[in-house]
Amino acid sequence: MKSPIAVVVLAAGASTRMRSAVPKVLHPLAGWPMLRHVLESVMRLKPARMVGVVSPGAKAVAAAFAPHPTVVQRRPLGTGDAAKAALTALEGHDGPVLVVYADTPLITTATLRRLVEACDRAKAAVGVLGFQASDPSPYGRLIVRNGGLDRIVESKEADEAERRIDFCNSGVMCLQGTLMARLLGAIRSANAKGEFYLTDAVAVARAAGHRALAVEGDEAEFQGVNSRLELARAERTLQQRLRLAAMEAGVTLIDPESVWLSADTRLAADVTVEPNVRFGPGVTVASNAEIKAFCDLEGVRIGKGARVGPFARIRPGSEVADDVHIGNFVELKATRMGRGAKANHLAYLGDSDIGAASNIGAGTIAVNYDGYGKHRTVIGAEAFIGSNSSLVAPVRVGKGANVAAGSVITEDVPPKALALGRARQVIKKGRAGPLRAKLKARAAEAKRTRQK
Amino acid sequence: MKSPIAVVVLAAGASTRMRSAVPKVLHPLAGWPMLRHVLESVMRLKPARMVGVVSPGAKAVAAAFAPHPTVVQRRPLGTGDAAKAALTALEGHDGPVLVVYADTPLITTATLRRLVEACDRAKAAVGVLGFQASDPSPYGRLIVRNGGLDRIVESKEADEAERRIDFCNSGVMCLQGTLMARLLGAIRSANAKGEFYLTDAVAVARAAGHRALAVEGDEAEFQGVNSRLELARAERTLQQRLRLAAMEAGVTLIDPESVWLSADTRLAADVTVEPNVRFGPGVTVASNAEIKAFCDLEGVRIGKGARVGPFARIRPGSEVADDVHIGNFVELKATRMGRGAKANHLAYLGDSDIGAASNIGAGTIAVNYDGYGKHRTVIGAEAFIGSNSSLVAPVRVGKGANVAAGSVITEDVPPKALALGRARQVIKKGRAGPLRAKLKARAAEAKRTRQK
Amino acid sequence: MKSPIAVVVLAAGASTRMRSAVPKVLHPLAGWPMLRHVLESVMRLKPARMVGVVSPGAKAVAAAFAPHPTVVQRRPLGTGDAAKAALTALEGHDGPVLVVYADTPLITTATLRRLVEACDRAKAAVGVLGFQASDPSPYGRLIVRNGGLDRIVESKEADEAERRIDFCNSGVMCLQGTLMARLLGAIRSANAKGEFYLTDAVAVARAAGHRALAVEGDEAEFQGVNSRLELARAERTLQQRLRLAAMEAGVTLIDPESVWLSADTRLAADVTVEPNVRFGPGVTVASNAEIKAFCDLEGVRIGKGARVGPFARIRPGSEVADDVHIGNFVELKATRMGRGAKANHLAYLGDSDIGAASNIGAGTIAVNYDGYGKHRTVIGAEAFIGSNSSLVAPVRVGKGANVAAGSVITEDVPPKALALGRARQVIKKGRAGPLRAKLKARAAEAKRTRQK
Repeated sequence: MKSPIAVVVLAAGASTRMRSAVPKVLHPLAGWPMLRHVLESVMRLKPARMVGVVSPGAKAVAAAFAPHPTVVQRRPLGTGDAAKAALTALEGHDGPVLVVYADTPLITTATLRRLVEACDRAKAAVGVLGFQASDPSPYGRLIVRNGGLDRIVESKEADEAERRIDFCNSGVMCLQGTLMARLLGAIRSANAKGEFYLTDAVAVARAAGHRALAVEGDEAEFQGVNSRLELARAERTLQQRLRLAAMEAGVTLIDPESVWLSADTRLAADVTVEPNVRFGPGVTVASNAEIKAFCDLEGVRIGKGARVGPFARIRPGSEVADDVHIGNFVELKATRMGRGAKANHLAYLGDSDIGAASNIGAGTIAVNYDGYGKHRTVIGAEAFIGSNSSLVAPVRVGKGANVAAGSVITEDVPPKALALGRARQVIKKGRAGPLRAKLKARAAEAKRTRQK
Repeated sequence: MKSPIAVVVLAAGASTRMRSAVPKVLHPLAGWPMLRHVLESVMRLKPARMVGVVSPGAKAVAAAFAPHPTVVQRRPLGTGDAAKAALTALEGHDGPVLVVYADTPLITTATLRRLVEACDRAKAAVGVLGFQASDPSPYGRLIVRNGGLDRIVESKEADEAERRIDFCNSGVMCLQGTLMARLLGAIRSANAKGEFYLTDAVAVARAAGHRALAVEGDEAEFQGVNSRLELARAERTLQQRLRLAAMEAGVTLIDPESVWLSADTRLAADVTVEPNVRFGPGVTVASNAEIKAFCDLEGVRIGKGARVGPFARIRPGSEVADDVHIGNFVELKATRMGRGAKANHLAYLGDSDIGAASNIGAGTIAVNYDGYGKHRTVIGAEAFIGSNSSLVAPVRVGKGANVAAGSVITEDVPPKALALGRARQVIKKGRAGPLRAKLKARAAEAKRTRQK
Repeated sequence: MKSPIAVVVLAAGASTRMRSAVPKVLHPLAGWPMLRHVLESVMRLKPARMVGVVSPGAKAVAAAFAPHPTVVQRRPLGTGDAAKAALTALEGHDGPVLVVYADTPLITTATLRRLVEACDRAKAAVGVLGFQASDPSPYGRLIVRNGGLDRIVESKEADEAERRIDFCNSGVMCLQGTLMARLLGAIRSANAKGEFYLTDAVAVARAAGHRALAVEGDEAEFQGVNSRLELARAERTLQQRLRLAAMEAGVTLIDPESVWLSADTRLAADVTVEPNVRFGPGVTVASNAEIKAFCDLEGVRIGKGARVGPFARIRPGSEVADDVHIGNFVELKATRMGRGAKANHLAYLGDSDIGAASNIGAGTIAVNYDGYGKHRTVIGAEAFIGSNSSLVAPVRVGKGANVAAGSVITEDVPPKALALGRARQVIKKGRAGPLRAKLKARAAEAKRTRQK
C-alpha cells in the first residue's frame, strides 16, 4: 500500500440486548475483551493513526482503546455521525481511512488489507466489504455494475430482482481520506430514525462522480454481537478458527470441540491436548508436552515433554520446565518448577520455587498466605517433600533434603538434612471397639434429640 | 379459558427399547424425572383435575404422580383404552380434557393452551396437536379441510397425495368432556394389533357430526422417548432451550454447549459461566457471580459477586453468600459460607458454618463424620484457619481466632485465641543421605524379590 | 467364505501433513494406535495370513504390527508397488487377498466381509469397495456395467457424464490370490508421479478378460487420516459409533457428545454416565453403577451399583467392587477397594488394598513412594481411617481398626486397635490479635521493601 492508513473504530453503539452492566465491546471473547480483537486486526495493518469513537461517559471503553486516542460521539445519531466525530483526529491524513466496528470482532487483517488495496488500485472514493449471506433478508444489498459498486439498496426498499441478490453490505468501509470530510458532510438524516448512515457515503460519492467498489469477505468475519447468544456464536466461530490453526500447526486435539483456547494460546507441534481443557490467556506449551483431560491453565509457560493433568489447575505467573509432571488436583500459582520436578497428586504450591528433579508428595501444601501477606517457598533441587506436608512460607528446603510425610515445616531445612514435624504414632490396642460404641451412642442420642 | 380443564397423562406404555430396570418415564431429563416435565407443563394450566394412567404394578410411576391420583390400565390395549381408564376419575367434569403423554416430555404449556383455546373457540369435540414433520413418513397425516380437521390418515394407508402432506399427528388431544365417554366408547379395535387407538376419536367425532380441529406446534415439542438415544436427544433439545433462555436473560455462557443445566436452575443477569459446568437441581446464582470452568453444583444459593471454581463441587444444602470465593478442588456439602468468606484451595467443608470474611486455608478438612454420626463445624467471622488443618466436629472456632497450619483441632477455640495442634519441627542434619541410601537399598531388594 | 483369506495392510505411506515426529499410523484414536483399529477389523475375519507393509526404518510401525509379520517397501513407488512387496509373504496362498490401509482406520469387518463374499460368489479377479461420496470431486469414479465393475476413471480424466457419478473408489481391494502376482506385475507407472497404482489392477484384470466388481460401503468408513484435522474427524466418527453402541446396550449417556470412550470401554445396561467423562483404555463398568460428571478413568473394573465421581480419577490396575463410593478429588492407582468401601473426598490411595465396608476419610494420603520404591498400604475390612491421615507404606491397618484424624501412621495398626499419630491441641488465649499484628507489620514491611 502506498499511502499510510488511518483507522476509525466505532464503539459508541448501545447494547441493551446484552442485558448487561458491562459495555458490550468489553465482554470477553477467547480471553480478550471483544474490542481488542478488532484492535489487533487493524494494528497489523500498521496504521499511521487509529482513533476510537465512544459514547459519552464510556470511560472503561475509552480505557480499553489506550494507548490509542478516542473521541466522543455526543449523541447517538448513527454511524455516519460517529465517523464524523473522528474527523478532527484525522486532520491532515490523506491516505485511506478504514471504518470498522468494535462489535464485529471477527474481521481479519487479510480481509481489511484486500479492501484497502482494491480501493488504492481502483482509486475509489469509497470501498465496502460485502459477503454472500446465507440469509440476505436483513441486509442491504450491494449492487455491482461494471466491476464497481453502483449502489446499496436497503432490504426494505429492494425490488424483487434486487432481493434475489445475496451479496450484502457488512458496513465495513474504506474512504479516501482527502474526500472523507466532504462525503460524510453530505450524508443526510432524512430517514425513519433520523440517523446519519455511513452507508450513504456510497450514494454521496457516486452522485459526486467518484468511484465506489465492493470487496467480498467471508460471512463469518462479519458476525456482529448484540446479544449473549450472538456473543456465544462469535466465540464459537473464533474457537473453531483457533482450533483449526492449532491442528494445522501439528497439535493433536483429541476432541477439538471440547478444547477452549484463548486468542494468544501458543501450542507447539506434537503437543497433545486431551478432551476438556481450558487455556486461559497467556499460555505457551512446548513440543511433546501432553495436556491431559480436565485442565485449566492460565499465564504459564510449559516446557518440552512436560505432562500436565488430568485435573491440573495452573494460575498466572507460573513456569513449568521441560519434563515436569503435574498431576491431578494440583494447583500452581506463580509457581516455578525446575526441569523434571514432579507434583503428581493433590497439592497446592502457590508462590513456590521448586528445584529440578524434586519430588513433591501428595497432599503437600505451600502455606503461602498468613492473612496479610503472601510468602514464597523455595525448594532446592533433588529435594523430597513427603506427603501431606505443610511448608509454612517464607521457608527454604535445601538441595537434596528430605521432609518426612505429614510434617509441618516452619523453619528452613538445610541441604541434605532430614526434617520431621509430626507426632509419634501411638497404638491403643482394642480401643477401636469402645470408641465406636461411644460414637454410635452419641449418634443415636443426636438422632433422638433431632426427633424431639 | 372459560371452563375448567382436566388433564389425563398417559404413562402406561412399555419401554423395552430402553433396556432398563427403571420405568421409562422416571429416567431423568435436565435433573427431573421425565414425567415431571409433563406434569409441570400441564399444571401451569391450573387444571381442575389431573389423573395419571399407569400400568399394573407400576408403583414408582404412580408415586411420581403424587399428589395427583392415578388409575391403572389393566391390559395394554392401546391409547384409547388407556384414556378410557381415566373416565371414572373425570366423572362430572364437563370442560375440556387434555390427553398428553408422559414420554413426550418437551411439550410446552403455551402449545397446550393454544389447543384448548382453539377447541373452546370452535366448540370442537376433538382437537389434535400437529406439526410439520421434517420426515413425515412414520406419522399419521392430518387432513385439514375448511379450517377443520377432516380426518387422520395412517401413514400406511395414505395415498400418494396424502403422503405428500407433512402436517402430522402428535397424538396430543383435547376432548370435550361431555362427549369424551361416548367418543372413547365408540372406538373399535378392529386393526392389526387389536388395540384401541385414541386417534380414532377424530373419526368417531366426525362421524357423529361433531367438529374436529388441528393446531400446529413445533416438531421439537413432540419428540417421544423410547430409547436411550431418544432420551439423549430430548435432553439435548431441553438443554438448548434452557441455555437460550439463560442467555436471553443476560447470562454469559462462554461455551453454551458445554454447560449443563437443570430444569430449575436460576441464573441472574450478568452471571458468567465458563465452559464445562454442571448445574444439578436446586441451584440459584445471583448477579455478577462467576462460575468458572469445571464446576459441579447442586442445591445451593450463590450470592452476588461470588466467585466459584474452577473445579469446585458444591453439594445440596449449601449457602454461599455475596462475595464469597470458592476455589479449586473444594467441596461444600450443607455448608454455609458468610459474606466474603474464602476457601480457595483443596478443602472439604462438609456440614460447616463459616463466618463472614473468614479465610479457610488450603487442605483444610472439616472432619464431619465419625463412622456413625455427622457433626457440624462452626467457625466465627474473621477467623483464619491455617492450611492442612483438621477440624474434628462437633467443634467451634470463635470469631477472630487463628488456627495454626497443620493443626488437628479437637476442642473449641475461643474467640481471638490462637490454637495449635501440631508437632514441633526437628532437623536431623546430614540425615537425608543415609535415609535415601536405606530406601534405595530397600527398593533394590524388593525388585530382586519380585524377579525371583 | 470357502477359502482362507489373506490380508495386506499398507502402512508405508508418508505423513508430512501431520507435522509429527510420530508415524501417522501410530497416532491414537479412541485410545488405540490408529493401526490397531484396522488390525482388529481384519483379524475378526480370521485371516490365514496377515502381513503389514512398512517403509524402511519404520521400526515402531513394524512393532505395532507384532505378532504379525511385516515387509518393507524399499522405495515409495505407490500402492501397487507396496502391495507387490507383500507377494513373497503370500506365496502359496490361493484364496482372496484383501488390501487395506492403516490410515483408513474406520473400516468395519462387516464391510470387508461383504467384499470378500461378493468376490467369491462372482468369482471376480478383483473387487473394490466404493461409496456414495457427498463430494465426489477428489475421487476416482467406479463405472459399473451389467453388475460388474467396468473401470475406474480418475477424477481428472472423467468426462462430464462420468463426473456426475458419485460412486467413488475407496482404494480397498480384494484380489484373487492366484492372480494377484500377475495382476500387480502388469501395472505400469507411466503416469505423472511415476508411481504404480493398485487401482490399475482393475484395468489390468479387465484387459485380461477377468471379472471385476464393486461393493458399496458407507462413506464414513473410508475416511482417511492425513492431517490432525482428519485425525480429529476420524476420532469424532469413532466416538459417535461407540456412544451409539453404548446407548443401544442400555447405557444412559446424559450428554453423549461430552463422553469420550475408548475402543474397548465396556459399560453394562443401566449404567449412567453424567456429562464430561473420559474413559481411557481398559475400563469395564457393571450394571447400575453411576459415573458422575468430570471423571477420568483408565484400567479399572467397576462393580455393580458403585458410585464414582464427580471429579474422580482412577488409574490403571484398580478394582472397584460393588457398591463402592469414590467421591470428588480422589485418585486411585493400582487400588483395590472392597465391597461397599468408601473414599468420598480428596484422597490419594495409590497402591492400596482397602477392605470391604471401610471408610477412608477426607484428605487421606496413602504415602506409597519414598523416592525409590513404591509400597502398598493394606487396610482390613470395616476399618475407619480418620481424615487428613497419612499412611506411610508399606503399612497395614487391621480389620475394624480406627485411625484418628490427622495421624501419620508409620507402623502397622492391629485389628480393632485405635491408632493416633498427632499432637495434642494447645490453646493460647487472646494470642490471635498480637500474632495478626505481627503478620500485618511483616506484610507492610515486605511491601515497603518491594517498592524500594
